[in-house]
Amino acid sequence: MIILLTNDDGIHAPGLFALYRALKPDHELYIVAPESEMSAVGHAITLTSPLRVQEVRKNGSFYGYAVTGTPADCVKIALQELLDTPPDVILSGINLGANVGVNLLYSGTVSAATEGAFLGVPSAAISLATLKDPDFGFAARFSKVIIRFLSTSGLSDGTALNVNIPALPPDEIRGVCITRQGTARFEERFETRTDPRGNMYYWLSGEKFVGEGRADDDFIALRQKKITITPIHYDLTCNRELERLKSLSFPLEIPLSHPK
Amino acid sequence: MIILLTNDDGIHAPGLFALYRALKPDHELYIVAPESEMSAVGHAITLTSPLRVQEVRKNGSFYGYAVTGTPADCVKIALQELLDTPPDVILSGINLGANVGVNLLYSGTVSAATEGAFLGVPSAAISLATLKDPDFGFAARFSKVIIRFLSTSGLSDGTALNVNIPALPPDEIRGVCITRQGTARFEERFETRTDPRGNMYYWLSGEKFVGEGRADDDFIALRQKKITITPIHYDLTCNRELERLKSLSFPLEIPLSHPK
Repeated sequence: MIILLTNDDGIHAPGLFALYRALKPDHELYIVAPESEMSAVGHAITLTSPLRVQEVRKNGSFYGYAVTGTPADCVKIALQELLDTPPDVILSGINLGANVGVNLLYSGTVSAATEGAFLGVPSAAISLATLKDPDFGFAARFSKVIIRFLSTSGLSDGTALNVNIPALPPDEIRGVCITRQGTARFEERFETRTDPRGNMYYWLSGEKFVGEGRADDDFIALRQKKITITPIHYDLTCNRELERLKSLSFPLEIPLSHPK
Repeated sequence: MIILLTNDDGIHAPGLFALYRALKPDHELYIVAPESEMSAVGHAITLTSPLRVQEVRKNGSFYGYAVTGTPADCVKIALQELLDTPPDVILSGINLGANVGVNLLYSGTVSAATEGAFLGVPSAAISLATLKDPDFGFAARFSKVIIRFLSTSGLSDGTALNVNIPALPPDEIRGVCITRQGTARFEERFETRTDPRGNMYYWLSGEKFVGEGRADDDFIALRQKKITITPIHYDLTCNRELERLKSLSFPLEIPLSHPK
């Protein structure tokens, strides 16, 4: 299969290379990834400045294209400019750190998968739930399962998979759970510091994940040592609230011609 | 009421000032907005560099805080550091240009409202559907209707409103429509250019909006000269696909201990 690989940790990230190495023997791979780290860029795209693309070599041979943009930019430019044939699958990752709960909205890794989904390509974001001493081996092998799933069972139009893998030896992983995006979030605070010139600055910190949830929330299942697979789409509509708002008379009563 | 104003066009944008001027007589306003334009940053937050905050004055008096970050950063730092009391309402805008369809994911304006929603504050993003010669007058006045709605009817936890206003004289606006996020998107392409040093670069272009939809899709209703109000949340889970995936036997059959 033709597979596009991207990420948000940058083209030189070990997580991307782990994917590349695991999939290379069986697939035609194209890497189009940010030149530098782009964590927490969310679904940003680059409009006010141009993108540059550079070929990157590894061990003497062509490895991929580095783009001076975000993960979403990489997917767009790969499909529109760099690849001759549309990929069969897009994988984004392997991200260093889980992408669960509210953090999905901040995640560049996830945004590459949703971008792929709305450009019509079966896509998945893959993250390893650790921030240090990552061993990407199992996660990279598990990506083959994801690819097989995407190419056989398929995905409904416009959806992508958000996959999180516990950072554990395979025999300690307690199976796979089809999950929903939970409401867990980082307990954040700003550290206040003073720079060498005496000016104050703020730095967002806080790594502790807080929140309760149901058994099939991504964050809960991951904590229970399960691989989580959440089907995601790019529709932010809250349907329950939509029905409630439609039932209110409010919208029709606005004095449009004579606003206060 | 205590109202926090932010945007993605930057603290000096006329759309923000129009909101400020319209709401100032009746409310206690706080402006915390990006120092410079942050369009299309999506839900990016700033982790790898610090944030700086500067007081901005207008016509000799304090106007607001300029932050060297994204709209989501602005909401976070406003609530955690800059405001003594949490705001009753957060308004993000008035954005120059519609925020409908797939573009919601790219929108910094919208991300400020969803960030506000998950920090527990009733929030709305307000956009004027034009890119040139904006007259923010009616949109600013209509924001009072939104504030009144948020403070009386309220919103379910975790939801925000995404409001788009046609760039038309008020008497040509054909009412208000409670909408869903449509699937319309920009027809994009990359322009390929050569810089003064002979190096190629790419620039994303394309302003034409394409896509079909239902009558209550934001993009369709806006084209029909209606004000659109879409309830949005920060849950990307595709529930329909979730049920389908759960019904498949796939997840249980993965050879976890002996991955290929």
